[in-house]
Order: sequence, then structure tokens, then C-alpha cells
Amino acid sequence: MKLPGQEEFDVYSAHENVTTGELDSGPGSGPGPDGSSDTGVPKDPLLFIQLNELLGWPQALEWRETGRWVLFEEKLEMGGGRWSAPHVPTLALPSLQKLRSLLMEGLVLLDCPAQSLLELVEQVTRVESLSPELRGQLQSLLLQRPQHLIQTTRTRPCWGSARPREASRDEEALLKEQRLNSLRQKLPPGAEAGAVLAGELGFLAQPLGAFVRLRDPVVLGPITEVPLPSRFFCLLLGPPTLGRSYHEMGRAMAVLLSDPQFQWSVRRACNLYDLLAALDAFLEEVTVLPPGRWDPTARIPPPKCLPSQHKRLPSQMQEVKGPSARRCGSPAEDRHGHPPQAPSPELQRMGRLFGGLVQDVRRKALWYPSDFLDALHPQCFSAVLYIYLATITNAITFGGLLGEATDGAQGVLESFLGTAVAGAAFCLMAGQPLTILSSTGPVLVFERLLFSFSRDYSLDYLPFRLWVGIWVATFCLVLVATEASVLVRYFTRFTEEGFCALISLIFIYDAVGKMLSLTRAYPIQRPGSPAYGCFCQYPDPAGNESQWTRTKPKDRDDLLSTDLGLVNASLLPPPECVRQGGHPRGPGCHTVPDIAFFSLLLFLASFLFAMAFKHVKTSRFFPSVVRKVLSDFSSVLAILLGCGLDAFLGLATPKLTVPREFKITAVILNRAEYRLRKGAGFHLDLFCVALLLLLTSALGLPWYVSATVISLAHMDSLRRESRACALGEPPSFLGIREQRLTGLVVFILTGISIFLAPILKFIPMPVLYGIFLYMGVAAISSIQFTKRVQLLLMPAKHQPDLLLLRHVPLSRVHLFTAIQLACLGLLWIIKSTPAAIIFPIMLLGLVGVRKALEWVFSPQELLWLDELMPEKEGSTPEKGLEPEYSFSGSDSEDSELMYQPKAPEINISVN
Amino acid sequence: MKLPGQEEFDVYSAHENVTTGELDSGPGSGPGPDGSSDTGVPKDPLLFIQLNELLGWPQALEWRETGRWVLFEEKLEMGGGRWSAPHVPTLALPSLQKLRSLLMEGLVLLDCPAQSLLELVEQVTRVESLSPELRGQLQSLLLQRPQHLIQTTRTRPCWGSARPREASRDEEALLKEQRLNSLRQKLPPGAEAGAVLAGELGFLAQPLGAFVRLRDPVVLGPITEVPLPSRFFCLLLGPPTLGRSYHEMGRAMAVLLSDPQFQWSVRRACNLYDLLAALDAFLEEVTVLPPGRWDPTARIPPPKCLPSQHKRLPSQMQEVKGPSARRCGSPAEDRHGHPPQAPSPELQRMGRLFGGLVQDVRRKALWYPSDFLDALHPQCFSAVLYIYLATITNAITFGGLLGEATDGAQGVLESFLGTAVAGAAFCLMAGQPLTILSSTGPVLVFERLLFSFSRDYSLDYLPFRLWVGIWVATFCLVLVATEASVLVRYFTRFTEEGFCALISLIFIYDAVGKMLSLTRAYPIQRPGSPAYGCFCQYPDPAGNESQWTRTKPKDRDDLLSTDLGLVNASLLPPPECVRQGGHPRGPGCHTVPDIAFFSLLLFLASFLFAMAFKHVKTSRFFPSVVRKVLSDFSSVLAILLGCGLDAFLGLATPKLTVPREFKITAVILNRAEYRLRKGAGFHLDLFCVALLLLLTSALGLPWYVSATVISLAHMDSLRRESRACALGEPPSFLGIREQRLTGLVVFILTGISIFLAPILKFIPMPVLYGIFLYMGVAAISSIQFTKRVQLLLMPAKHQPDLLLLRHVPLSRVHLFTAIQLACLGLLWIIKSTPAAIIFPIMLLGLVGVRKALEWVFSPQELLWLDELMPEKEGSTPEKGLEPEYSFSGSDSEDSELMYQPKAPEINISVN
Repeated sequence: MKLPGQEEFDVYSAHENVTTGELDSGPGSGPGPDGSSDTGVPKDPLLFIQLNELLGWPQALEWRETGRWVLFEEKLEMGGGRWSAPHVPTLALPSLQKLRSLLMEGLVLLDCPAQSLLELVEQVTRVESLSPELRGQLQSLLLQRPQHLIQTTRTRPCWGSARPREASRDEEALLKEQRLNSLRQKLPPGAEAGAVLAGELGFLAQPLGAFVRLRDPVVLGPITEVPLPSRFFCLLLGPPTLGRSYHEMGRAMAVLLSDPQFQWSVRRACNLYDLLAALDAFLEEVTVLPPGRWDPTARIPPPKCLPSQHKRLPSQMQEVKGPSARRCGSPAEDRHGHPPQAPSPELQRMGRLFGGLVQDVRRKALWYPSDFLDALHPQCFSAVLYIYLATITNAITFGGLLGEATDGAQGVLESFLGTAVAGAAFCLMAGQPLTILSSTGPVLVFERLLFSFSRDYSLDYLPFRLWVGIWVATFCLVLVATEASVLVRYFTRFTEEGFCALISLIFIYDAVGKMLSLTRAYPIQRPGSPAYGCFCQYPDPAGNESQWTRTKPKDRDDLLSTDLGLVNASLLPPPECVRQGGHPRGPGCHTVPDIAFFSLLLFLASFLFAMAFKHVKTSRFFPSVVRKVLSDFSSVLAILLGCGLDAFLGLATPKLTVPREFKITAVILNRAEYRLRKGAGFHLDLFCVALLLLLTSALGLPWYVSATVISLAHMDSLRRESRACALGEPPSFLGIREQRLTGLVVFILTGISIFLAPILKFIPMPVLYGIFLYMGVAAISSIQFTKRVQLLLMPAKHQPDLLLLRHVPLSRVHLFTAIQLACLGLLWIIKSTPAAIIFPIMLLGLVGVRKALEWVFSPQELLWLDELMPEKEGSTPEKGLEPEYSFSGSDSEDSELMYQPKAPEINISVN
Repeated sequence: MKLPGQEEFDVYSAHENVTTGELDSGPGSGPGPDGSSDTGVPKDPLLFIQLNELLGWPQALEWRETGRWVLFEEKLEMGGGRWSAPHVPTLALPSLQKLRSLLMEGLVLLDCPAQSLLELVEQVTRVESLSPELRGQLQSLLLQRPQHLIQTTRTRPCWGSARPREASRDEEALLKEQRLNSLRQKLPPGAEAGAVLAGELGFLAQPLGAFVRLRDPVVLGPITEVPLPSRFFCLLLGPPTLGRSYHEMGRAMAVLLSDPQFQWSVRRACNLYDLLAALDAFLEEVTVLPPGRWDPTARIPPPKCLPSQHKRLPSQMQEVKGPSARRCGSPAEDRHGHPPQAPSPELQRMGRLFGGLVQDVRRKALWYPSDFLDALHPQCFSAVLYIYLATITNAITFGGLLGEATDGAQGVLESFLGTAVAGAAFCLMAGQPLTILSSTGPVLVFERLLFSFSRDYSLDYLPFRLWVGIWVATFCLVLVATEASVLVRYFTRFTEEGFCALISLIFIYDAVGKMLSLTRAYPIQRPGSPAYGCFCQYPDPAGNESQWTRTKPKDRDDLLSTDLGLVNASLLPPPECVRQGGHPRGPGCHTVPDIAFFSLLLFLASFLFAMAFKHVKTSRFFPSVVRKVLSDFSSVLAILLGCGLDAFLGLATPKLTVPREFKITAVILNRAEYRLRKGAGFHLDLFCVALLLLLTSALGLPWYVSATVISLAHMDSLRRESRACALGEPPSFLGIREQRLTGLVVFILTGISIFLAPILKFIPMPVLYGIFLYMGVAAISSIQFTKRVQLLLMPAKHQPDLLLLRHVPLSRVHLFTAIQLACLGLLWIIKSTPAAIIFPIMLLGLVGVRKALEWVFSPQELLWLDELMPEKEGSTPEKGLEPEYSFSGSDSEDSELMYQPKAPEINISVN
């Protein structure tokens, strides 16, 4: 096949057989014709590839788009009239081999200067083997408009040019259709197209293959469904002897073009050999599934994470990754914008007193103005709403329980105000302003411990608490001065999970315990239980109370069988009776029936509602937005539903106690904005903690820790993402809108929320207990420890394919779990004794246990089960094996949310 | 590489490059050396393949088994010390190509006569390129015992020869270890082994490849972990230049050997070219996953069904499928032993009066003795226990509700006795004795309709019912005589699902309705509701009742505020009061508090328990046996738990009403063992129905239908399966123990169970309502209709990849669903009117609607959405597209259980 006009641009056509051995020059061995590969790192644009297939031979020839690719494949469901879900493309090996020989014998035009489809078609059909008549037929066929299944935004899909159109219809309409294509909005600006045209054509005597790279990409008229400039054009036609094999060859070409490495090479290829070498390089790396073990028509959904391209790509194209789907092994990088376990500069010891703090302030001061300007984005409004609701839900739940725990010394309103003051101040001053402060689990546990301790030793609660606060503040300042935050690195997953499990268990235990105590307060009316009798007795007109005639008939002597001789009595219900001046009498007056079981129902209902809403996120129903809202506001919705159910039946369930007016209980200097967040690690944050301690000391408010989940949700709601999320890829992560305004607004709103007090008293306590249980269960299900405990109950052959099980013998895994369980049991025992006051010290105890484990387990095992402790300052653990993501096979959404960046932070809070 | 002693047996060694084009002779083109391929169809034995890898070069050379295959791959987790779960093997393409060239240059011995490992090693190492010294080293290396990770039954895995052993240790111990291997019990008798030895060996100057097919398979000493005779032996050694590539080549060889077609070819290969042709044929069929889109280390779990091997295999090997994993598209074949939609001989019209019946009796009479002898198997005992429990659970639930529906005209005990009599008689006489009769959903609905109809028109219920029964029996006999059972084919999935959905909805509606009516019977005590007052009043010693002093103070005139002047009154609870001769007085005496909410709790608890137990089957916890028991007995367990909870609290919840003694209510001729199972289709069955009608007419018992789920469970519990279920394959299905004894015993036990009456009265009604709800929800979730209704709520891009969605436009699917919903609404309206008596006629109405749908939908669409109706008698629908399994992507266990064979049976019953 010889080409006329070869002198116009680089053309390589080869007839001789070329074997792989001769092509060892590798991809992109020479500088590309555009000279870009040796100057700097130009970003290759994203490539959208479309396969147009020639159908209907011989009667009604028409082109129809039957597939499209960016990274994954979308197939046209002919019968269904829809695009399939994106899936991993699978190819048959022969189609790749046939494509290779067709390219070898065909026409390869690199840097073709064609400026329009017409020019391009003329170039492509200038092949010797075609008679002028055939050429004309072929050209008109190639210029024929293909059918696209275009899905315009918010409307039903329409078949672009589904019916034969009249010639008078102008191009405007077509362009409008192309522009309305919703796919277009998902492709980033600058994207290019690649068009593959394949099919059977009866009047061709021999196969016709052509591969064109356009020097300047142009919009090839109606060929692609989106009006993108096309860079590549590939034509694969032949006589209909090979069945559907041209379709398969077309798919093979499209899949090749969608491969980043092939794309990189072919953009820089100088001749046919470079092209073939790129194809061979692709073949070297394909994964092969044997026949008979795999149904080739099965569609593999896009994997949650892609294998790293780093080792595949030449160094120049490391930057050119197209829309970056999440890569395996770097979820943290995606979520928080920094690689996991990187030795963060904040943790480098300065070696001077307050050296770290000074560093922090210097670093942050530069950004301070932009911390407010960056917040001017609509996304921040929705973030404020979301985080505000989460924060007050937290404040209501924990405040309500705190009020119970401290006999009302602190409660819901204090919780609101405290959250507002501490949070707002922290937002303004802190190093990490996205952290949300709230009084969650550990605070509740610790306050309750302090309260019972002060009661046991007859101490005055608030002054006692003040002293604790002052000591802690001092301790914090010392830590800041000595830059001791770096020691946080010694808190490994083992420590964190032990503490998280303990707090979660306390939640669960408390929630259930409180429900049971309700059934004692509102006893169940068993048949024969003496709870029936109650009547109302009032004084007679003379002021004398009516008289009991105590006669004991038969041989019984209890109150119930006592004969009554009553006057001036009625059967009015007790409250009515009291209002009328009488006295309710009888054993049944103080029991309220139905409350116990109804409370239990409310408790279970709010727990199950919250769980169900949480799991809506992973269901297939409703649009993603609805699911996200339902899932994000699961606690709020569950509380609202519980309140609604309670209000509907109108029973006298125990409600949240809210004082009529807000008292600030202690204006003395007893405020300690103590945070268990000593692990926050950044010197500035710790300094703020200490400063807040003195600044807000006049307020009698509960303590706070950083609310891990809310803080992560805050960052999550402020993610900046690319809008290009076509074809099965998750949107790529661009960063987080780091600013101080959202937090500030949230806390101001929280402060204002103390005026919600009149509404809050309609919230039944069982609902709060249910949410409390939900929080405990959600927190404990999210940690690896729980998954390992579950392994104890699973027969080995049914265990999930966890990476850690691949590398650590099961008995060793079980031993590790057993040790953790033992530690947990010990912590529980300590918690239940007066020694509970040393609660925070337990953390250090766990670090000790973890250190001792190094005698029992090999470093390799610990790397998979936990993580290595730093041997000495500055050293970082081996990066060869990354055990952090050993649960990557898990499909839990929670574990992703609860993912704890291994930057310097302990996340022992649960909420 | 030339081989000395080539004359001893067929040896082919080739140095010249052979391209695929020259090898177009195809696999197994000539008769195999053993001559078996052209005589009859000898079954090839199953092949177990093991990869032994040479590790530890250069210091501590040792062989270790690192992979094993039958159809799927199991990999040794070195670190974890365990075998991975079986998975689909994936290969790198280069490893296959390298293997091909190594084989081409290496030694291929076909039908090697070696009788022991020693002889084999001598043959294999007789290569010119090896010096005598190297040969000796290599021989001793090959004779070295490899390490196996042997998992013996019920004990911890032990490393076979994990430590270097002394030579004195005799072979006995090794053989014992091999024999204890639990894997061995999973491989069928006659299985052969294939050993692949691969690794890097530094003292070799060039790669050494050898492929041996032994003429007579022999146990090669310790090479394989199971003492199977080895048929294939493959050695792949070379200098350590290529990294782990020998490991990958070894895996490639093992995967090749595990491919049925390659195995077939290589068993019959005459020379190297046949071997290479088989490898090339394998390559032709592999599926290729592009790099970068798929993580090659990800393990693909075995698919639920395998692609059919039929089109891959040459005709001689169609029978040779190894342990048959379930193939795609033939679940019915697996479960019921006959292909789906085959035109069954029972449905051929004889054209004579009672012709079909005579045929049936003739066919069945032959098997009658064996119908009892075949039951002598231990499996039948467990089947009896399981089916008995399911049957009485059914009888209790539906009997209890029937008693409520018919004002006690029929109840639990009648349900027991009726099930026993009808079931046992049917078992003895019927054509399909595995069918279990029980009074399930449709019967309950129909009896209730009849009852309300007779009440509305003041008819005497039992005589009315007798006449209905007689008419139905006559109708049945006419159907038998005219062989009209063949018309059953007109009931398509559309009809079945419409009816099933209606029955399920009635279940759900009834269950919820009955719970709500309980809250009216036991009202909730709202604050201020007049339910507090109750006292006990007895006559004074003179026999006069104490007096009420009716004075109305204030301006109120209700009973509650009436002043009481009472003597001879006490606060004893009402039952106690009555016992003491008094009268409970006051508005609070007739209310029982706490019952409403507790009933609701019981209702929800038993529903949720049943659901949870049902889903235990698909969880990972507990051994399979435990999970199966929990799941199979979910209803029984939920009832027991509900009863336990009720007994624990001891509240006066409404209980199941069981008469003190059993009355057979009507000894008149009013029995009609009418079955809605007219769809059973077999003439003999229908004849039995009519006969039973007259035979058992003296008993006043409820009617019955075939209980679909229990009948399927019955068959399922009697499946005969191969024990070979190694390596991820489901056990293969051998048939069902067809006999009459299990059913008979079950029904005798059910009859005896009427003596359980004293226990039954402890079952609270809310628990039965909960089970009822569970049955309705389970039945409605199992039908395709529900899945299509769910599609209405799913955004298109989140919809599952159903085959029907690939072939039918979404709008058409929705239209079909909407029509079904409209039919369902219409049926519901008819059911709620007096026209409800024509309930069974509705079935015919649905057939009419279905017929009319042919004007709306194309046959192609109906094929996917429903199934084609027979155009005329004898014609069967197109078999090209099999839409029955279009939900194959669904992971629901229920849909599998509820799979309804398209043999002549309508399954409209729900239980």
C-alpha cells in the first residue's frame, strides 16, 4: 500500500515483518516531532476516545457510536438504548494481534496537517489499492454523519441524527446538540478526542487500516459526540470475512489509546516502529485471564483504586496522569493533600525553648489574610450548614448526657455556649483552623469521672475541676516550650484503637444501662403487680380528710386487701386530683404505664434510623446528592424522627432537661479549656489551648476535644474537586479550602443556638440514648481492631482477603487481638474503680504495652498489625511496605471517613 | 539441546522458530498415542496441579509448594502460613511467551515410561548441555523433598517436612502425612496430579525446560502434597537472571494445565507441535485486561457461574468437564436435574380421554418400590427433621391466622391434622411425591374470602364450602380427563409474579393491620386518659353491695369526678378481686397497660430475628453448617426467641388460641382437598387431588396448596452431591433422592404433633404476626417484579448491570412495570369488594392482560421481560436467548431459592 503525496508530511508505511526483538528502542526514545518532550514537562491533554462502527452492510450502511473511553469503557447497549456503566475494558488477545498486523501493513500518518474532516478523509483514502470510484464511495461514506446516543443534561437521551435527516438541516443544529451533551461538561477544558472508525465494508478487496495523528487537533465535524478537537483518527475497514473482528480491533485501538503510557508514546512517536513498539510495550504489561475460568462478557466494575502509574511511566510524564483516579496505596494523599507518614516539618524539633511555637506562628502569619478571603465561595455556605447541624447535634447529645452525669452542673446550654466560645477562639488563633471543637466522648467520660471522684471525696466539684484545669494548662505550656509534641509519634494505631474501643464500649454500655434504668423508673405492669389502684381523696367540706377503714377480712394483711371505707374520693388522674386540691392515694398513683416499652421503642427506633440513614450512602437508590444528605445528617434526622414519633403519641416520656434560663454556674476562675487533644501536636494549637484556658476562664462550661469525625467531615465538605468525573472515575482532588471563616460562623451560630432552649425540651431522652448507642457502635465498627476480633469468629476459609492475613500467620494475628482485648479488659476494670482518675495516664500505659510487644512480635509482623514506633527521633519507618492500607479490601465507608492521617494527631475522640 | 536415548520413547525437540501460522492443524488433530480419542468417549480424570518453587539460592536451596490448581488458583501466603482463598488465576502475557520459547527449545517427553521419581529424574536430566557433575547435583536437587503446607482435617496446618529431616525417617511417615491431607478427601477417586517445578538455579549456564507426560501415572514420592499418581511433570529451571520470572512461568504452565481444553489436547498430543498448538489455542482465547486499569495483584473471586465450555471443547470431550462448577445459564439444570424449558414429555397431549393419566401411572408404577428403598440413606433423616420443623411452623402460623379468620371454624389443630392427612395421602399416590402440601398464603386468603362471603350472604359456612369443594373436584377431574394441564404453559412469569406480589402484599397488609388492631384492643395509656381508676368492690356481710354516693361537686359531671362513698372496697387487681367474690369497678379495670407496646416490640423482634437469621447464610461468621442451620430454621428460631422474650417478662400478651380438645367440626361430607395447585400439571397429581377430595371428605380441615418454598427446600435437602469441592468450586450436583418416605414420615410426625397443643398456647400472637410479615417481605423481595419496581427509584447510572437493561430500553422496562403495578392495584381493589369471590378467576384475567401486552411490546422485549407464550401447542420458544437468568448479576440468595423451574407448575403460593 503506497501513498501518493508522501512528501507532504512524515509518513511511515512498512510491509516487512518486524519482530518484537528488533524493536527494543522503547517508547518515546527520540524527541517528539513537536519538540516538546525534551523541553520542560508539558501536560498532555486528556484524551476522549470514541469508537464509531459501520453497521448495516450491505443494505443500510450507517456509522454508529458503539463505545467510548477515557480511562474505562462505556459500551452502547444497542437494545437498551443507553450507555453501560463504565467498566474495565477486556480484550481478546487475537484482536490486538490483528490490529498490530493491520497497522503494520496500513497507513500511518504522523503530524498530518489536515484542517478539516474533508481534508483528512482525502488524505486517508489516497491509497494506491483503491480505484478512483471506490475512493469516492469511501470518502462519501466517511463523511456521512454517525449516530450518537447523546444524553443531554436532565432530559431523556436522544438519538443524535437517529433518523435520516435532510441535507438542508444546517450544521448549527448539530453543533447545538453536541454542545448540549452532558458528557462535555464532565471533560476538562483542553481535552482532545480520538476517533476510531471500524467496520466491515463489502466493496473493499483487502483490509484498509489507517492511523493518523493530526498536527493541530481540529473538530472533525460530526464524527465525535462532543465537539472536541480530535488529535487521533484511526480507520479500520475490511471485507466482511472476519465476522465482528473489526469491531474488536476498533475496541483494541480505543483501549490502547486510552492507556496513559501508550498515549504518551504515540503522541511522541516518530514513525511506525515507535507506534508498534508502544503496542508491544502495552502487550508486555497486560494481565491475562485464562479462558473457561472467566466469562469474557462479564463487566468488571472500575476498581476502587488504580495501580500506581509511577513505575509504568517515563519520568517526563509523571505529571501527566489525566484525571487522576484514586491510586492504590495513597488514600491519605487524596484526602488530605499530603502523603501519609511523611515526616512533617511541624514535627522537626527546633531545639530552642518555644522554638516550635515561633516557627508555627511565622508559618501561619503569612496566610492569615487569605484565611478569610479564601472563604468567599458558595461551597462554604453549605459547609457551614452541614457542620453547624453536626455540631449542635453533638452539643445536644453530649450536653444532655453531661447534665445527667454532673447532676446539672453542666448541661445542654453550657455545652452550646462552651462550644461556641472555645471553638470560635480556636478558629481565630489556631494553627489548624478546620478543627472543630466539641465536647464528645472522652470529655464526657472524664468529666463524669471527675464528678464522681469529687463526690466520693466530698470535694467541691467546680473548684476541684478548676485546679485540674490549671495543672493541665501548665502542663500544656511546658509541652509547648519543650517542643514535646513530637512525642506524639509514639502513639501508634495500637494505642489509638485501644482508647477508641474503650470509649466506644463506654458509650454502648452507658446507652444500654440508661435504658434499663428507665425501666426501673417506669416499671412494667405485670399481671398481678400491685399497680392498679389509685384514687383521689380530698378533704371533706369541714377540712377533714376522708377516713380509711382498716379492717382485714380473710387471712391477708397487705394494703391491697384492706377494706376501704371512703368518702370524698374520686377516680381523677393524679395531676388533675392535685389541681383540685386532693391527694392521690394508692399504690398505682406513682406508676406511669407504657412509658418503659415506648422508651425502648424510641431508643431502638432512633438507633436503627440513624444506622439506616448512614447506610443510605452506599445504596443504589436516589440520586447521590439525596443519599449524601441523608447519610450526612443521619443523627439529626434520627433525632427529628424520634421526636416526631414521641410527639405523635404524646406520652410522658422523660425529656431533655433544659433550664428555664441560662446560668453561668461559676463566674470564678474555674474554667479550663482543657483539651485531650494534646496530640494535636502543632505547638501553636497547644499554645492556643493553654491560652484559651486563661482567656475563657470566667465561664463555667464543659471541656472539649477536637471532634475527629466532624473535623474530617468539615475538611471533606471543603474539598476542592475537579468537575471532570466522566466515565467511572472519581473526581480528582485538588485541595481543601483552608480558611477560618466557616468554623467561625459555625461557632457563632452555635452560640446563638442557646435560644433554641424552648425547643430542646421536647427531645426525649431515649432518643438521645439511641443516638449515643449509634455513635458507639459506629465508632467501634470503624477500627481495625474490631475487624480482627471478627476474624476470631470466622472459619479461616471464609475470612476476607486482607493484606495482613497474607503476611502474618493467623495465630499471630489472634495473639495480637487477644493482647488488645486483655488491655481493654484491664482498662475497663480500672475505669470501674476509684483508680479511674488516672484515666489519661492509661494512654501512656498502652504505649508501654505496645513497646513490650516488640519482644513478642517481629518488626515485620508489627508493621502489618500496627505500625513501627520510631526508634529514635527523626527516623521514619520503612516505606517499602505500607501496612496502613491493609484493609483496603474493606468496603466500609466508615473506615474511610475514620481514616486517621498518621500526621501528628491522636484521635481518641468518638462522636 | 539434544537428548541421548531418544529411541526409547517419543521425544520431540525443536530449535527452529515455529510461528502460529504454520501450526494450523488445531488441537488434537490426530489420534492420541493411547488411541483413546478415536474410540468411544473415555472420561479424562481430574487433574490436580501443584507448583513447587526452588527457593533460597544460593545458600539454602529448598523446594516449596507455592501454588495449587484444579480449576482455580490457591496461592501459598508465605508470611501468613496459609493457603489463599481460591481465585481466578491471572497471568502476565510475557510469562506465557517465555514459557512457549522455553518449551520449544527444551525437552518434551510424551508417554515417558518412567515408573518412579528416580527414573523420571534420570530421564529428565539426560541433556547434553549438562556436565556429569552438574547432572548429579541437579538429580539430587530434584530428589530433595519439597515443603508442603499440609492442612490436615480439623487440626492446625503443619509444615510438611518444614525442618530438615534425618534420612532415617522412613517413607511411611511421609505417606501418612500425605494421606491425612484434608485436600485428598476433596479430590474424586481417579484424580491425577501434575507437578510443575520451577525456579532459579545459579549453576545452570542456560535455561532448562522439560515437559513430561508419563505413560502410566505414578506417585512421584513426596513431590505432590497428595499421594496422587502424577501424569504430567514440568521442569523450568534457569540461571537467576530473569528475577522471579521462573515463578511466573511455572504459574503459567500450571494455569495452562488446569485449562480443560489444553489438558484435553496435551493428553492427546503426539509431538511438540501439538503441545505448542494447544498453547496457541489457549492464547487465542485468553481475556486481556489492559495495564493501569487493573491492579494485577488483585485477586478475582471465582465467578458464581462459569462460561459454558461447550463451544470451546471438541465434541469428544464434551463429557469431560472435571468437577462441574455451575455453568452460566443453566441454574435450573443444576438444581432440578433437567434442562429448563425443555418440552417435558408429561405435557405431550395423548389425545385420548384420561390418556395423560394412564401415561403418568404407567411411568410412575415402575419406580414405586424404589420410591421407598431409595430413602434408606442418612441424609433422609436430617431432611425429615428439617422439613418437619418447616411444616409445623407453617401449620402453626397459618393455622393460627386461619382460626382468627374463620372465627375458629378452623385452627391450628385442624391445620396439623389436615396437613398430615392430605400430605401423607398425596405422598403415597402422587406423581411428584417430593411436593409438600401445607395451608399457606393463597389458601388463607381464599378461605377468608369464602368465610366473609358466606357471612355476608348468611350462608352456612361449612356446607357452602363443601359445595365449592365438590365443584372444584369435578373441575379437576374434567381437567385430568381432557388433559388440559398442558394449558399451564400460558401462565408466564408475568402471571405468577402478579399473583405472588398480591399474596405477599396481603400478608404484609394483614400483619401490620392486625398489630394496629391490637393497639385498639389494648389501648395506650396517655397522660390524662381515664384509665387509672379501678377498685374492687364486694358485697357487705349482709350481701348488699356497697353504695356509691353520687354527689357532683364543682361543675363537672363525669364519672371520674364523682365523689365516692365506698365501703367494702379494696384495691385488689381485677382477677384477684373476682376470685374473692367481688366486682372490679372503675374505668381502669378493663385496660391492661404495657401490652400494646410490648406486642409491637415482640412483633418487630420476631420479624427482625427471622430476617437476621435468614441472612446469616451469607455472612462470613461461623462454619457453613451452623450458618445453614440458623438460616434454614430462621422462622422456628424467631418464634422460639419471641416466646422466650414473652415468657421472660410474663406479660398478658394475646396468645394463640388452642382448643382444649380436638373437635372435628363437621363430619358431614364437606371436605374438599382443593388445591390451588392446579398448575401442578401432571395428570396423576391432579387426579390425586380430586381423589383425595372424596377420600378425606369426612374431615373438617383447611384446604392446601403445594408449599413452594418448603417443597424446593425438601428437594434441596435431598440433593446428591459429589464430595469433591476443593479449590473454590461448588460441589457438583448428581441428582435428588426421589422417594416417598421422607414426605410420609414428615406428615405422620405432623399428625402426631396435635399433642403439642398444650405447648402451642404459649405462643404470643404478635410473634406469629411478625413471622407472617417476614414471609410476606421475603416472598415479595424474591421476585423480579420487585427488582424492577426498585429500578424506578434508581438513577440510571446507579442501576445494576442487569441483562434485561442491556437489551430493553429503560422506558419500556418502566412501562412494563407500570402495567404490572396497575394490574396489582386492580386485583387489590377487586379483593376488597364482594367480587373477591372470583379471586381464582383473576389468574385468567392476568393471562389475558399478558396476551394483550403482545400488542404493546415486541417479542424480543417480552423475551427479556417475561417469556414468550406458546403460539400453538407443541411449539417451544426460541432458545437462542435465554432471558430467564437475566438477573444473574443479582446476589440475592432468595431469588435462587425461589427460582421457579419453567416445567409445568405455577407457583403462586407464598410461605
